[in-house]
Amino acid sequence: MTPMTSRTPVPAPPPPSPLPPDLAARLKRTSDGLLPAIAQQYDTGEVLMLGWMDDEALHRTLTTGRCTYWSRSRQEYWVKGDTSGHVQHVKSVALDCDADTVLVKVDQVGAACHTGARTCFDADVLPVRDTAAPAASGPTAATGSTNTPAPPTDSGTTTPAQ
Amino acid sequence: MTPMTSRTPVPAPPPPSPLPPDLAARLKRTSDGLLPAIAQQYDTGEVLMLGWMDDEALHRTLTTGRCTYWSRSRQEYWVKGDTSGHVQHVKSVALDCDADTVLVKVDQVGAACHTGARTCFDADVLPVRDTAAPAASGPTAATGSTNTPAPPTDSGTTTPAQ
Repeated sequence: MTPMTSRTPVPAPPPPSPLPPDLAARLKRTSDGLLPAIAQQYDTGEVLMLGWMDDEALHRTLTTGRCTYWSRSRQEYWVKGDTSGHVQHVKSVALDCDADTVLVKVDQVGAACHTGARTCFDADVLPVRDTAAPAASGPTAATGSTNTPAPPTDSGTTTPAQ
Repeated sequence: MTPMTSRTPVPAPPPPSPLPPDLAARLKRTSDGLLPAIAQQYDTGEVLMLGWMDDEALHRTLTTGRCTYWSRSRQEYWVKGDTSGHVQHVKSVALDCDADTVLVKVDQVGAACHTGARTCFDADVLPVRDTAAPAASGPTAATGSTNTPAPPTDSGTTTPAQ
């Protein structure tokens, strides 16, 4: 009688990640396999933009010295600066405590934003209700023009509402 | 004969957003209705953490002076610091050029990370291949321990590979 052997078919493994196995194993990706990637200017601390990376984009970012992202709208990789010249030279990459976000410190050449602004967060400051001031205008205080910069808040020591 | 009237049933409107209508209309949310929200220390520029906000969390953040996030794992709102005391006082909120990410500048009390670290990006620096150095070790250069900090790169002027 033929002895039992372990010839039972096993499911095909998932496509290999280009990342080191220990890193690939602990990443917590969105349902479409992505991580948000924050790009920050390494010396000034400016937050430049947020892009998305899958394993391949993160691998390329770690190994080529240039930031590579995955475009959710175009469904393709893009190397920052390839068309604009506004290259992001990678200085360091850190994963957060939950392994679901990366922070990429870069040296940004020129404007980070496709609008020509230095960062993608320069143009659209939302009004923040100053909780140190009396709420004279009630719940509509936050409904003003979204292009109106919030008044300066010096309320770092404001007692939280709860 | 009864004249035609516009009594055709219309679909119920979506639940109203607590945000100003012009802002709610232009937000580009993920399929589960969220925006990534980057929290940055307003004076030092440290990127502290990334959380998620739906319209209600963003509304609370804009109007209460405290950062409120949506927990994807617990499926509930959480006000940063309510359990730890490590409050985030909101200084400013900006929407990015694509209206799909917010940058919240805050004054962080104590540690931002649940591990006790100042930021969620302090502990897990990934090795970056220094593209200014000869690639003597080939494609395995990026497979070292993920706890090994990348060597310092002074290659801000490195010519991109492509």
